[in-house]
Amino acid sequence: MSYVKKPALIEEKSFEIITKELGVRNFDEKTSKVVKRVIHTTADFEYADLLEFHPLAIETGIEALKKGGDIYTDTQMVKSGINKRKLSALGGTVCNFVHDDDVVKEARDRSITRSMVAIEKAIKNENIRIFAIGNAPTALFTLKEKIDKGMPKPDLIIGVPVGFVGAAESKEIIKSLDVPYIITKGRKGGSTVAAAIINALIYMI
Amino acid sequence: MSYVKKPALIEEKSFEIITKELGVRNFDEKTSKVVKRVIHTTADFEYADLLEFHPLAIETGIEALKKGGDIYTDTQMVKSGINKRKLSALGGTVCNFVHDDDVVKEARDRSITRSMVAIEKAIKNENIRIFAIGNAPTALFTLKEKIDKGMPKPDLIIGVPVGFVGAAESKEIIKSLDVPYIITKGRKGGSTVAAAIINALIYMI
Repeated sequence: MSYVKKPALIEEKSFEIITKELGVRNFDEKTSKVVKRVIHTTADFEYADLLEFHPLAIETGIEALKKGGDIYTDTQMVKSGINKRKLSALGGTVCNFVHDDDVVKEARDRSITRSMVAIEKAIKNENIRIFAIGNAPTALFTLKEKIDKGMPKPDLIIGVPVGFVGAAESKEIIKSLDVPYIITKGRKGGSTVAAAIINALIYMI
Repeated sequence: MSYVKKPALIEEKSFEIITKELGVRNFDEKTSKVVKRVIHTTADFEYADLLEFHPLAIETGIEALKKGGDIYTDTQMVKSGINKRKLSALGGTVCNFVHDDDVVKEARDRSITRSMVAIEKAIKNENIRIFAIGNAPTALFTLKEKIDKGMPKPDLIIGVPVGFVGAAESKEIIKSLDVPYIITKGRKGGSTVAAAIINALIYMI
């Protein structure tokens, strides 16, 4: 069989195809890089219309990463998808507390999601500068509640939960916080989308 | 804020919405469960048309899991997305060799993808009964080559790489092997889709 075996060549060809099919869009160069990486990850061109960027989001995100800021993710899947070798070279790590024993217990006791309890734990950690939420609407709702109550604000919230119950609403309310955000409108999103956005930021540094 | 906080209720409501919006389809009950879980994971109803099932795929997959068969995944993301607690209760584990030192070295030396080398390692392992490939077309191409050369056949191949170079072709050639398969036609798919299919099978046991 004849097929392309070199990873770098596969990625280069993929981005050529995406650029061609995406056509002329009104994105600046950095935004375009994020959008294309999300399409690369999903093969879904709808994301060009679904992604919404706070005007400062990409710059503040890149600055936070350059300073070695940590990233909190709502699932192990997002964590797995992030290029941790490159993140680590910048001095940052990825945290996720959903499987922590104290979080599991407290979620069960209070009969709420583990995501919510984990966010409460994360927001107290001052090294966490970016929240990348790919699955749990409740994580975004909790983030909104805590910031409204005066908890310290992160530098960037990536809010892209996928889903049918609460996902779209959770992303809209994040826009009302005075915190730079990157979201997907509507139901679509997910772990791979959250990881792709983070990786696009990392690769721009 | 008022929002649904109970995980079980969120999932139940989500599946109700999916069932309603999907409408009447010509799927049997088990196929329907797989399709709906993929839609639940992606919020993308296109998967109802993109998923393609070998007639024996679900049954052989369930049987392999019941017997404690292991699953090989092409990425850590697929591995992260699989419900390992329930899989472990059945006696199975999830393996991924892409980050193994020997695999990384050999891929660099031969200038081919790590996925390909990892598949060569996996196919020699007789406990691996299911391959769940969510990203690397080259993993599927390698699987096809090795099985053509007489290597032992797994019980099920889940072939759902996402992408623009080789992904669609890699899924089509898997259908020519005499091995039950679940694939997505065209470019779409990914880690979350592969994990959702495995989880749907696990939850039916």
